[in-house]
Amino acid sequence: MNTFGNLLRVTTFGESHGPGVGCIVDGLPAGLPIDLDEVQHQLARRRPGQSAITTQRSEADAPEVLSGLYEGRTTGAPVALFIRNTDARPQDYSQIAQSFRPSHADYTYEAKYGNRDPRGGGRSSARATAAWVAAAALVRPWLASMGILAEAWVSQVGPIVLPADYLPTAGDLALGELHPTRCPHPALAAKIEELITQVRDAGDTIGGVVAARISGLPVGLGEPLHDKLHARLGQAMLTINAVKGFEYGDGFAMAALRGSQANDSFIATEGGIRTATNHSGGIQGGISNGEQVPFRVAFKPVATLLQAQETVTISGQPTTLAARGRHDPCVLPRAVPIVEAMALLVVADFVLLSKARDFA
Amino acid sequence: MNTFGNLLRVTTFGESHGPGVGCIVDGLPAGLPIDLDEVQHQLARRRPGQSAITTQRSEADAPEVLSGLYEGRTTGAPVALFIRNTDARPQDYSQIAQSFRPSHADYTYEAKYGNRDPRGGGRSSARATAAWVAAAALVRPWLASMGILAEAWVSQVGPIVLPADYLPTAGDLALGELHPTRCPHPALAAKIEELITQVRDAGDTIGGVVAARISGLPVGLGEPLHDKLHARLGQAMLTINAVKGFEYGDGFAMAALRGSQANDSFIATEGGIRTATNHSGGIQGGISNGEQVPFRVAFKPVATLLQAQETVTISGQPTTLAARGRHDPCVLPRAVPIVEAMALLVVADFVLLSKARDFA
Amino acid sequence: MNTFGNLLRVTTFGESHGPGVGCIVDGLPAGLPIDLDEVQHQLARRRPGQSAITTQRSEADAPEVLSGLYEGRTTGAPVALFIRNTDARPQDYSQIAQSFRPSHADYTYEAKYGNRDPRGGGRSSARATAAWVAAAALVRPWLASMGILAEAWVSQVGPIVLPADYLPTAGDLALGELHPTRCPHPALAAKIEELITQVRDAGDTIGGVVAARISGLPVGLGEPLHDKLHARLGQAMLTINAVKGFEYGDGFAMAALRGSQANDSFIATEGGIRTATNHSGGIQGGISNGEQVPFRVAFKPVATLLQAQETVTISGQPTTLAARGRHDPCVLPRAVPIVEAMALLVVADFVLLSKARDFA
Amino acid sequence: MNTFGNLLRVTTFGESHGPGVGCIVDGLPAGLPIDLDEVQHQLARRRPGQSAITTQRSEADAPEVLSGLYEGRTTGAPVALFIRNTDARPQDYSQIAQSFRPSHADYTYEAKYGNRDPRGGGRSSARATAAWVAAAALVRPWLASMGILAEAWVSQVGPIVLPADYLPTAGDLALGELHPTRCPHPALAAKIEELITQVRDAGDTIGGVVAARISGLPVGLGEPLHDKLHARLGQAMLTINAVKGFEYGDGFAMAALRGSQANDSFIATEGGIRTATNHSGGIQGGISNGEQVPFRVAFKPVATLLQAQETVTISGQPTTLAARGRHDPCVLPRAVPIVEAMALLVVADFVLLSKARDFA
Repeated sequence: MNTFGNLLRVTTFGESHGPGVGCIVDGLPAGLPIDLDEVQHQLARRRPGQSAITTQRSEADAPEVLSGLYEGRTTGAPVALFIRNTDARPQDYSQIAQSFRPSHADYTYEAKYGNRDPRGGGRSSARATAAWVAAAALVRPWLASMGILAEAWVSQVGPIVLPADYLPTAGDLALGELHPTRCPHPALAAKIEELITQVRDAGDTIGGVVAARISGLPVGLGEPLHDKLHARLGQAMLTINAVKGFEYGDGFAMAALRGSQANDSFIATEGGIRTATNHSGGIQGGISNGEQVPFRVAFKPVATLLQAQETVTISGQPTTLAARGRHDPCVLPRAVPIVEAMALLVVADFVLLSKARDFA
Repeated sequence: MNTFGNLLRVTTFGESHGPGVGCIVDGLPAGLPIDLDEVQHQLARRRPGQSAITTQRSEADAPEVLSGLYEGRTTGAPVALFIRNTDARPQDYSQIAQSFRPSHADYTYEAKYGNRDPRGGGRSSARATAAWVAAAALVRPWLASMGILAEAWVSQVGPIVLPADYLPTAGDLALGELHPTRCPHPALAAKIEELITQVRDAGDTIGGVVAARISGLPVGLGEPLHDKLHARLGQAMLTINAVKGFEYGDGFAMAALRGSQANDSFIATEGGIRTATNHSGGIQGGISNGEQVPFRVAFKPVATLLQAQETVTISGQPTTLAARGRHDPCVLPRAVPIVEAMALLVVADFVLLSKARDFA
Repeated sequence: MNTFGNLLRVTTFGESHGPGVGCIVDGLPAGLPIDLDEVQHQLARRRPGQSAITTQRSEADAPEVLSGLYEGRTTGAPVALFIRNTDARPQDYSQIAQSFRPSHADYTYEAKYGNRDPRGGGRSSARATAAWVAAAALVRPWLASMGILAEAWVSQVGPIVLPADYLPTAGDLALGELHPTRCPHPALAAKIEELITQVRDAGDTIGGVVAARISGLPVGLGEPLHDKLHARLGQAMLTINAVKGFEYGDGFAMAALRGSQANDSFIATEGGIRTATNHSGGIQGGISNGEQVPFRVAFKPVATLLQAQETVTISGQPTTLAARGRHDPCVLPRAVPIVEAMALLVVADFVLLSKARDFA
Repeated sequence: MNTFGNLLRVTTFGESHGPGVGCIVDGLPAGLPIDLDEVQHQLARRRPGQSAITTQRSEADAPEVLSGLYEGRTTGAPVALFIRNTDARPQDYSQIAQSFRPSHADYTYEAKYGNRDPRGGGRSSARATAAWVAAAALVRPWLASMGILAEAWVSQVGPIVLPADYLPTAGDLALGELHPTRCPHPALAAKIEELITQVRDAGDTIGGVVAARISGLPVGLGEPLHDKLHARLGQAMLTINAVKGFEYGDGFAMAALRGSQANDSFIATEGGIRTATNHSGGIQGGISNGEQVPFRVAFKPVATLLQAQETVTISGQPTTLAARGRHDPCVLPRAVPIVEAMALLVVADFVLLSKARDFA
């Protein structure tokens, strides 16, 4: 339902055009210093209106702490954060209350719940992802202090794809972060920006891929069988709005390979046992082996088009719908911090779990 | 951990070369007739030794009912099934007790648990999937009685790929089921069989893709936000041994598309609201819309090679390892019933959940 | 942790002297009309300052809806309610930051979490119960519409005990509700009020028992084995601050009886199968049988005394502590709506669960 | 449902007169030596036929290990134990398939599930408790190695009650263990045995109370708010067949007291902070404080009488029923190891959880 995690449990609430969105983060270690500037910073990476190629809705996304902190540190009690909506325009959605937007959740929510909140998609809106980003920002510095990082970037928009063997350095990523596309490859970033602008001007939208890597994981995170690290990671990514696919390590490309090409030999190093290659993606048998965990997440194009589309009304009559309101032509740039956030929440949960499992 | 599902909870246990594997299925509706022949049939589809291109381990995989049935029907109590191992040869694994097989779970289990069962991979063995297949066979006829089917087939082995627009009929699938490859496309099935035979003879292994579709779903299955139907489906597929990627609907291909190409228009039909196309894959906002749910699952090549590979011993010394024992050159044919089983378990859980949510 | 329930999940947050307390109620049926006056009414029954024999802290306890409603009805999305603290006086607690109040959670929280919020007990404060009362008020009218009621009353304070066979009528309970003690027996209510006043004036506190009954339950609520209706009810009651015991049906008194005295014969009535007596308390094998579910909950005296008590400082030095601030001499009158709330939340969860289990 | 616990999850299955009963224990630390003699020993304490005052059903209760052990130690994989029924006599229950035994679960199971297993109560039988006893025996030596013990004894049968201030020594308990009543007070044990014999000869049954204490707990076990140590303990006890009440610390007696009588002063000792008294029962704010946790569990008399009782048939016609088969006149002696088992399972779960929470 609306709760995620085993020992670090994140419960979220809120709608696109209601009072706001929020999260309850339960299970944080007590005594953890909380950096609200970091929360604000991560929310700023996700917030609308951050560039010419994102939606022009203007939200400050300022988080209010409702509970769980004392003198700047966690107490072991649940931390509640609330982010008020300040630029909601529910009136923009009067039309869609009467029709089902193609490839949106309007129809399925109406069919399932009957009493649907049509204002901006209500609960199905990607605005709900702000709560995850805020939640993850609480644990990001803590994980970083253990050397654990989740770094994501835009690796594909429409037909523009980064080279398969492209691996950004930290510097590349910092540069990409400054670019409106969040693509770390300068030449392709420029092309992507141009493409998104064209698509926007045509009233259309476009899909893409976010690539990511988790680094610094200790050996041993993940639980057989159903809480395999990559299974939980995949579930988390597939929870993000518009995601259609997930792969890790060499992913779908491994289907074409032979074992003699795909296996990762173990080697002895000064730092311990490592693998010579990392086709496996840092996870074997569902458990981290200490190598990086690279993964890729496919996003479909935003369903809201300014172009007219065929659809039906809630009473089943054919109609034509063209979106009004403010919308993203491409979610990829804003998806980067969301992918990182979900990865961090999954990892933090397993870090806690691994403590319970460690009897060495 | 080893339990899966919300209202239909499947708990599994067992190892490759211990006494056997089993499952406890909790939450089955009471009064459900149980067809043990169906359980046996599904296990036979998964069992080793079924053809020249699978491992030659010979297991009857006969399930014993330990609890939960009365006069052939469920009572509401948990159903326990146990499948004894009859052809275990733990001695085949004496060598690997001392080394870490590349791209297996040996190293990560050793690092996590210390006391590893090295006999055939112990708990990390794909033998554990027999328990899921047995569990799913309990609900398969019940779902079928509602018109819900999960059908899978081999759509890629190595470089041999079925056409992107290939959609097998029921007849194609029945035919494919008779072929050792479980590929429903006769011409490519023959090529795949030849390829697997070559690979086997070379002491190598090869990866592939299982494609699948769930049909007959009612509108409304799936729970926002974290129990989206496709998120649970993805988690389930990523739980299967050797899986590296999952996509549904048009999947990764949607990253290249524009919204105007990828959206599914709603249309009014005599049977109610439908979509003109199904790029979305039968799910919108995490909830089924009544269309088919197609998805694809990528399998890496089997890690066990008869060829020599570089690795290290448990004390970190370089060594060379060539497998003995009996192994699959390609898991794809046997993966088909496993993919179907996991899909059915996910769907059955959501069917139960939807009843609790239905207040119309 | 801070989430309760299977299909109706209540997650709470908040501290006594922080910004406020709140709840996320996930899993409410969609389309349920929400009566915020009812929420306010139930909070008023629990709120401090309601009479001369409760704490004089003055909280309006006005709930703010943060999410989940559309046009006055639930949408299927989680409902978030927040109750701001308006009369917090954290400065009253500067002393206890340095010492452990006897029979409070100060020491155990300090030992477990290190970073304790000492302001009014922080998360361990009974103020957290306001969130449960608010959550339960959301489902109370819905359950009432099915004929399901949870009614509680004060049946003992200190040595003053209602007769063992006393069963209040609805009229008695309405009358009791008007009395500051929430005891429905007029003669004993007067004595209890007098006793609490004496105890208060002596700077002391006093314990008691809340009796309750759930009526109107359908046959079949409760899940073997670990979610027996009474086991979940007991867990819920034992979660309430200061509770030391729970019994249902004839409870501890049944330990003294023979089966021939304690069994409930089944009888055929026009309305179906009933029991001639109800020693069992409306539950057999963990499942409701359609009779009333009577239960009793024992509360220890409030631990905060205005009298001086021996204790130790956080560094382990002996000291003496006498409470300042505003405190209840007896929680029993305010515990009545809390007991009802927890019972309603348990029942509502099982009502949802029973729908998933009903395949008749 | 049939799974219990957060990190140590026990799933049970099986019926009274089916193939047997069993448990899957998931989450045990890896490398734990398992003492099957201990499992057998604990099962022997619970098994039927152990004395003249228990049922004469004769079960060896020999556990078979189906998974999870390697060379005598846990591997981190789930441990499955199965206990075959060897003296089942389903034919004894042909009569009750047609009638509802008073105060049994026959009627509620029939109403809930329709397809009831009438053989000896099926899943509702106390035979299911063997699985808990076996599961707990896996962790008992591990907890004992940390100094954690759960010790229970019979403190009341019918009107015969041990003195309120009676606290058995380890020697008393060892002596009580040798007595068929499991009452450690020799004089009263003799009277209890006599009473049970009388009751048995009259074809009647009788209730009682099991008292228990958990000792050696570290400070800090238990999770606010809904996983308070005593709330989970209460839930666990209320899960045991025939239990009608649970209290801990001074329990219901605290309702009669004033705070000045009931509070536990903190004192500084060489071993750290302790309490001068233990009215609280070793738990404050839901978290262990390092003192003993005493608690009491009330059992109703066994519902199965050899005397004739009024009841109705499954079609609702009045009838008379007198039990045949083999039954306990008093479950208290056999309840002692069950109470200990449930307490140990709760504690073990919290020990694991506390490791995840410990960031000191």
